[in-house]
Amino acid sequence: MAKAVTLLSGGLDSTTLAYMLKEQMGFDEIIALSFDYGQRHKKELAVAIQIARGLGAEHHIIKLGVDEGAYTAPLATVLGDSVLVNANAEVPDGHYADENMKQTVVPNRNAIMLSIAYGIALASNADVVAFGAHAGDHTIYPDCRPEFVESLSDTFRLGAAWTTDELEGVPEIKGPFLFKTKADIAKLAHDMNVPIAQTWSCYKGGDIHCGTCGTCYERREAFEVAGVPDPTEYLDNTTKYNDPTEA
Amino acid sequence: MAKAVTLLSGGLDSTTLAYMLKEQMGFDEIIALSFDYGQRHKKELAVAIQIARGLGAEHHIIKLGVDEGAYTAPLATVLGDSVLVNANAEVPDGHYADENMKQTVVPNRNAIMLSIAYGIALASNADVVAFGAHAGDHTIYPDCRPEFVESLSDTFRLGAAWTTDELEGVPEIKGPFLFKTKADIAKLAHDMNVPIAQTWSCYKGGDIHCGTCGTCYERREAFEVAGVPDPTEYLDNTTKYNDPTEA
Repeated sequence: MAKAVTLLSGGLDSTTLAYMLKEQMGFDEIIALSFDYGQRHKKELAVAIQIARGLGAEHHIIKLGVDEGAYTAPLATVLGDSVLVNANAEVPDGHYADENMKQTVVPNRNAIMLSIAYGIALASNADVVAFGAHAGDHTIYPDCRPEFVESLSDTFRLGAAWTTDELEGVPEIKGPFLFKTKADIAKLAHDMNVPIAQTWSCYKGGDIHCGTCGTCYERREAFEVAGVPDPTEYLDNTTKYNDPTEA
Repeated sequence: MAKAVTLLSGGLDSTTLAYMLKEQMGFDEIIALSFDYGQRHKKELAVAIQIARGLGAEHHIIKLGVDEGAYTAPLATVLGDSVLVNANAEVPDGHYADENMKQTVVPNRNAIMLSIAYGIALASNADVVAFGAHAGDHTIYPDCRPEFVESLSDTFRLGAAWTTDELEGVPEIKGPFLFKTKADIAKLAHDMNVPIAQTWSCYKGGDIHCGTCGTCYERREAFEVAGVPDPTEYLDNTTKYNDPTEA
């Protein structure tokens, strides 16, 4: 019995990762975690429930809030004005790697989600905590870099065991896609029959993928580069990111 | 203007730390955070509100929960069976450093609280994140060791900045009591006129401190060793920990 706790946003990357853990990496027990911290793209959460069910995984939605006396506000309200959590801000269109995409950063988000996932992994004797950050994320988010993930894993292990002997069996944090591109993930998803159309990437939270926000464009591009069919329905699948290298 | 985000449980250590940040360390702006993850000693939260008000600090209670559809359960329900979060378990009496006190561990608790505090520090441009772990905690909790705190600080900074240049101004995690004893803290609290009687240590959650649970005993002992008066009212302040060195 190998057990993995994995972050499941309901997007293409984390869904493909969950399938890979089960079908290629030998984890027969998966605990999938989704987070509700007040992000605007809540559709992710409904999607994550469906994905976890299809995979036969245990699934929890972790709610992060701030007590306001009469009610609980989302944690996002004290995490600054990232456009992902600020209902009044405009989600930027364009390529995921553009400068304006840095607005989509929620401060210390990966550490927050992974610390809770790690606590659950310790409580449930899981072998690994996994998350789906990939090589393309490194350019936007310093907390998607391999050195960050390794350092976080080492730190949490240090917090869970006294001696090197005791480290035996203490969970590690793994980012199996850290050196893969989004196109590699699209190819993997295709090859493993992941329910791609069910996954949700769009940051705008409409009924179907907008096709032009940063993650939608990145998703379209990934399937194109991978050369595998993209079953996703987009509102706009023709607007092209204006590649400066083609100028 | 120097700003600190600090964890405030409402206990003696974190309260004394908050006072020290303001009165001795030059932080004129304090954001105090308390956490509600389903711990049984909820009285702490009410106490923390009073302490923060007295100090003139901004205060947030962060709520960590799990979505159960119709309601939100405390995060503790998926964090295992530590006696601190399990309503059916008996809180052990005795000395804080005893073997049975290890039952009071909530897995990865410090990393969870500090990761959220760090996110808030980034969002609010704070200079440090502080927490009140002290030398006596090291024997029970590996995540109270100085090397853990240093590693966590370095990791979160790595997740927040790309280059060494950018690290300028990125918050650090500080544990000003990591090399102090609880008796040192009692002395400091006395000297700074901290509202000691208002703080709450007891894990049992009664109307007054029980005096015999691990943290109550540790608290009584600290004031005794420090040689300063302890204004706390205890249900039982005579039962003595049976010190094996006196046998």
